[in-house]
Amino acid sequence: MNIEKQNLPLILLTNDDGIQAKGLEWLIEIVKPFGKIIVVAPEKAQSGMSNAITIHTPVRATFVNEKDNIKFYSCNGTPVDCIKLGLHQLLDTKPDFIVSGINHGSNASISIIYSGTMGAVIEGCINGIPSIGFSLSDYSKVADFKAAAHFGRKIFQKILNHGLPKYTCLNVNVPKVQIEDIKGIKVCRQAKGAWKEEYDKRIDPQNGVYYWLTGDFDNFEPDADDTDEWALRNNYVSIVPISIDFTSYTAIEYLKKITNEI
Amino acid sequence: MNIEKQNLPLILLTNDDGIQAKGLEWLIEIVKPFGKIIVVAPEKAQSGMSNAITIHTPVRATFVNEKDNIKFYSCNGTPVDCIKLGLHQLLDTKPDFIVSGINHGSNASISIIYSGTMGAVIEGCINGIPSIGFSLSDYSKVADFKAAAHFGRKIFQKILNHGLPKYTCLNVNVPKVQIEDIKGIKVCRQAKGAWKEEYDKRIDPQNGVYYWLTGDFDNFEPDADDTDEWALRNNYVSIVPISIDFTSYTAIEYLKKITNEI
Repeated sequence: MNIEKQNLPLILLTNDDGIQAKGLEWLIEIVKPFGKIIVVAPEKAQSGMSNAITIHTPVRATFVNEKDNIKFYSCNGTPVDCIKLGLHQLLDTKPDFIVSGINHGSNASISIIYSGTMGAVIEGCINGIPSIGFSLSDYSKVADFKAAAHFGRKIFQKILNHGLPKYTCLNVNVPKVQIEDIKGIKVCRQAKGAWKEEYDKRIDPQNGVYYWLTGDFDNFEPDADDTDEWALRNNYVSIVPISIDFTSYTAIEYLKKITNEI
Repeated sequence: MNIEKQNLPLILLTNDDGIQAKGLEWLIEIVKPFGKIIVVAPEKAQSGMSNAITIHTPVRATFVNEKDNIKFYSCNGTPVDCIKLGLHQLLDTKPDFIVSGINHGSNASISIIYSGTMGAVIEGCINGIPSIGFSLSDYSKVADFKAAAHFGRKIFQKILNHGLPKYTCLNVNVPKVQIEDIKGIKVCRQAKGAWKEEYDKRIDPQNGVYYWLTGDFDNFEPDADDTDEWALRNNYVSIVPISIDFTSYTAIEYLKKITNEI
């Protein structure tokens, strides 16, 4: 029995930008007043890995170091692999919270679906652990995470005190502005939108064609003021509660009707 | 302008078991009476790749062959990369349908979240294209897909005639039994459950520790008769309508209340 665990919550941290990312240092700043921390993060960048799991190759975890009473492990797999390995191999007890990020780049709207940061959060939620993902709308490696850490700490404290509904996790996004320019927080729904992809087509030295994925986000409902995209564009921190039940309940009756002769 | 396109729907097919998988041959059997087919499938198995996209390395598409008027392309990326490359580089016109599978293994309940088969379907849905994933509850490479093809064709025809609601795609799973033992189809919700992981820990010849992901599915509500897991266990084909809006609307008021002082 871990004595510390009896007093302080155990918080498992990860991200998708890799264990060296600056955003992870700032994530530690968010949670460190509130509990005992363990980090299991990908050894290299895993952006866009969604809820991917490693099946066809083995995964490995490496103890990196211990600093300020925080153990750091790196994993050669995806963010979800980090959570699964943490829960089932590396931690002695089930963590009280899983927190992921701070992501270098927005995970608002449909980006949640591709996000490794949010993949880890959803994995925590599937396992019944209150889980939160934090992202900053700035892809830069040297992004300024001060505002994200400031509001992240306030939000984390509220969840620590009040809990989250079952099967619900949080997608928190912070706009790329200074703390003093942030108007506050908004609980939102996920904006409807898609990435308008344009592949950058190139020719390699052996005359082979290859493509780089590029694109811009297209907000299908820019005027709706209850979405995460609206909140971010208007300098609010957005909080979207995420369900791990993907059923479209409104479509069930329609489908029953059209398939009733099969 | 493609003359054939004016008469027959254009159907883009993919899977996550790779272009050589038997399930893909059977997927072609499902849709071939109804339209013009193009296949863009991963060059190797991409099970568990979820909605992952390839960002840090370039992607490539290779024209494999043309058989029975069907063009086959392989892609070195994920199922979602296959759909994105298909839509934005390989196809001249937007497809009318995207169909993925037939997966070797169930994608019911929470497995949808990890599934590359369903990742491709969700990507189609994000792009406004009616999209369906078919999976058979049999991981074997030599699984018997006859029942899945039989019911798959009936379901596809209904969707072809009636369409799908906006932002909704389908997760269809077929039990591992003979056609004559299938009791019919059931429109369901996603069962609540999780994979109970147990890593198989091994030591490599250099004394390094590595882990293989293994585990069993744990159905949290085995008695609920409106879920996909119940349908499959009782020899029904399950159809779950899937929403690409992950917002937990029921949690919004609670979160507004607990965060209103921030």
